Amino acid sequence: MATQTTDATGERREDDFSAWYIDTVLKSQLADYTAVRGSMVIRPYGYAIWERIQAHVDKELKATGHQNAYFPLFIPLSFIHKEAEHVEGFAPQLAVVTHGGGEELTEPLVVRPTSETIIYDMLSKWIESYRDLPVLLNQWANVVRWEIRTRPFLRTAEFLWQEGHTAHETFEEADTEARLILDLYVRFIEEELAIPVLQGRKTESEKFAGALYTYTMEALMGDAKALQMGTSHNLGQNFSKAFDVTFLDRDGSREFPWSTSWAVTTRLVGAIVMVHGDDKGLRLPPRIAPTQVVIIPIWRKEEDRDKIEPYVAEVQHDLLEADIRVHVDWRDQVTPGFKFNDWELRGVPLRIEIGPRDVENAQAVFVRRDSREKRPVDRESIRASALECLDSVQQSLFEQAKRYREVHTASANSWETLARLLEDRGGFVWVDWCDSQPCTQKLAAEKATVRAIPLEEGEAIPLGPCICCGEAAKFRCVVARSY
Amino acid sequence: MATQTTDATGERREDDFSAWYIDTVLKSQLADYTAVRGSMVIRPYGYAIWERIQAHVDKELKATGHQNAYFPLFIPLSFIHKEAEHVEGFAPQLAVVTHGGGEELTEPLVVRPTSETIIYDMLSKWIESYRDLPVLLNQWANVVRWEIRTRPFLRTAEFLWQEGHTAHETFEEADTEARLILDLYVRFIEEELAIPVLQGRKTESEKFAGALYTYTMEALMGDAKALQMGTSHNLGQNFSKAFDVTFLDRDGSREFPWSTSWAVTTRLVGAIVMVHGDDKGLRLPPRIAPTQVVIIPIWRKEEDRDKIEPYVAEVQHDLLEADIRVHVDWRDQVTPGFKFNDWELRGVPLRIEIGPRDVENAQAVFVRRDSREKRPVDRESIRASALECLDSVQQSLFEQAKRYREVHTASANSWETLARLLEDRGGFVWVDWCDSQPCTQKLAAEKATVRAIPLEEGEAIPLGPCICCGEAAKFRCVVARSY
Repeated sequence: MATQTTDATGERREDDFSAWYIDTVLKSQLADYTAVRGSMVIRPYGYAIWERIQAHVDKELKATGHQNAYFPLFIPLSFIHKEAEHVEGFAPQLAVVTHGGGEELTEPLVVRPTSETIIYDMLSKWIESYRDLPVLLNQWANVVRWEIRTRPFLRTAEFLWQEGHTAHETFEEADTEARLILDLYVRFIEEELAIPVLQGRKTESEKFAGALYTYTMEALMGDAKALQMGTSHNLGQNFSKAFDVTFLDRDGSREFPWSTSWAVTTRLVGAIVMVHGDDKGLRLPPRIAPTQVVIIPIWRKEEDRDKIEPYVAEVQHDLLEADIRVHVDWRDQVTPGFKFNDWELRGVPLRIEIGPRDVENAQAVFVRRDSREKRPVDRESIRASALECLDSVQQSLFEQAKRYREVHTASANSWETLARLLEDRGGFVWVDWCDSQPCTQKLAAEKATVRAIPLEEGEAIPLGPCICCGEAAKFRCVVARSY
Repeated sequence: MATQTTDATGERREDDFSAWYIDTVLKSQLADYTAVRGSMVIRPYGYAIWERIQAHVDKELKATGHQNAYFPLFIPLSFIHKEAEHVEGFAPQLAVVTHGGGEELTEPLVVRPTSETIIYDMLSKWIESYRDLPVLLNQWANVVRWEIRTRPFLRTAEFLWQEGHTAHETFEEADTEARLILDLYVRFIEEELAIPVLQGRKTESEKFAGALYTYTMEALMGDAKALQMGTSHNLGQNFSKAFDVTFLDRDGSREFPWSTSWAVTTRLVGAIVMVHGDDKGLRLPPRIAPTQVVIIPIWRKEEDRDKIEPYVAEVQHDLLEADIRVHVDWRDQVTPGFKFNDWELRGVPLRIEIGPRDVENAQAVFVRRDSREKRPVDRESIRASALECLDSVQQSLFEQAKRYREVHTASANSWETLARLLEDRGGFVWVDWCDSQPCTQKLAAEKATVRAIPLEEGEAIPLGPCICCGEAAKFRCVVARSY
């Protein structure tokens, strides 16, 4: 649609990661800026990745008994005020509709920053007895949170997500649900997006506004900063009580249901760029790549084109039969070299070059996007080799990201070590932590936060006193600078 | 989730169609009212129908080369003002965000009522030459239009839709695109939703605000009122000019692209209810029904349950293998009679009853939802008969709707006849029409509008003078009262 760029992203990833990121997102046409401050357009190539994320997560959610529904975009301002922590957390970020149909509204409406309040208002109408539980709802929607500093995919005023909302008879059931979803997310992100994640619990100050506690997944981006990849909250009875949702339990008494909420967002597209991208552009994990293989026919004379065309068609057919998402780039107004760069920029995992000589020799030339390794493949092996290569790229991207994280994970037993680690090389740092307010503030002054308290009880046991104040530590946890 | 109701919808469709409609939508749990005036919740059963609509339309759009993208929810108010007819049409319906992040905005943002303006602002950046054309975009999104009188699915402040936006080199290409989409919609609505539609063009006063002209599909609901099922607009160069979108054409001169936009919405779910529903509730066309077959096991004693269980499982497996969407209702706290009513209310096309006697006789009892005809079917014929029955229900619902429309289509050659037809029995009325403003106003006073000017040139040729003023008619067209 827009003019293509032959050059790579133009920004060296090492020198200025942030500029490289923006440049890569724009040039690979994942997204673009718009006239509305803090909003972005998700362009077809970026949206195709989001559609694959949606399809996968949606299927998993349905397989675990969740049903999709759709709740209103607008929420009465008074609803947000019903849960004390919730309003404190979200009030500064609200977009407010004050006029509708040419008239001032009697009560302002907020554009949903998340949907707990409107959903619990409905649940108070729908839930009567334990027979109506569990309620297992999900919705795919847009939400709005007014942000000062924005960045495409990572932080925008409006973003797309799925938000799950469930209600249960007991605390234990709610916890099981919140963990089930966390596991589902982790598996998806590691297996499909090839991004290793650290699971854990958030501290009081980092948890969702209104939750009892929050489970999180944290990944390390290519600049050694952490990114929260998704969260799953046990909301306790907070929203049930705020919206007077009750049910008649098995003993005939009225109880408040226990509930959860959880979400992943279009932010995941940004994470794919930041974890796997390189100086040439995107490197998409094959399982999520809209196009897995691009075939570049190479010809100069018209007779050469005629010669390779049936051969290319056969190879394409062969790959399609193996359910490989393949595209043939027959553009005649640009050179093969331009096409190589263009598809590298767009991160297609495998390029297959086919010229007249390849037809003669009954072969094709494979070039992997991850390592850029080049090798000839015999005609009869093309399908099997392509499948193998896609598996290998998927695996290799995950291994690289894991190795990067290992290298960028350390532990500190003094404040000085922590501060130096954060400043010099970023990454995850394990520390013993008291979780007091003064220590949290001191950490914030280093532009860092506690990212996660490990879920494995053993891993969370402190090895010494709080690294900050020297008082008794409450737990051992992972600290990092983050997006 | 909510308590089930054993009784049918409770409202007689003939007596008060409007009350029957609301009652049916609420009781079958397609949707519910919310605390926000004019907004609705689409509940899982209603959303499942919408998901099937989405999946089908999305696949067709992709097969015809369209790509999905996502544009911002918020649009600067000034954008809406750039196209003169557009602002006139949409200004009275806008919801306006005046505050964000606790501060008053310097320029108010409108919540998109439709996305032409924000999209054309982006196209001015993306399109440079004829090589960038055609642009074939689609987005699945929520939109907001402030409405005074609302009705679930048919007219709500917020609704869901797909909106397609395309740009082309020539007027002819844009017209071809607008017609291609109209055809695609018509085929989908007739074949999948079993609703016959009348295709046509809108008059000047009924066209989309900002379009050169609008193609429309009109269907007749069960109360003989018309419903616009979807539209496809040729926008000419109106938005290109308003947003200064130009391209270098093949001769090297700068031109404005010709464009289209088109949409179908969640309104289609309401149409399914209003066309096919009866006093017992919904009657869903099998191709769009989330559940196509419900099996009701019938037992009293525990030993009977043990006896029928493996038999039911085999039948279920048999149907699943034929890709039939089947559900077995094993609930033990309600009676079979309750279940019959419940699934009739929800419009499941085919009910299969299986009791101990059926197991002994190696059969099952089929009950069609459309005719409520009941008959035993031999075990070995169950799969084939179920497939046949679903096809037959699909066909029969379409035929019934078509017959209803035939009965409710007339032609009038005097104003008195037209007025009497509209008042006494509604439906479509063919008339010769001058399309002047006074005549349009006189028609509006009868609560009617011109719904469509036929596309077949022959059909649009007037047979006499304008039925209203007696002056020369411009065309022959279809008039109706509508939603």
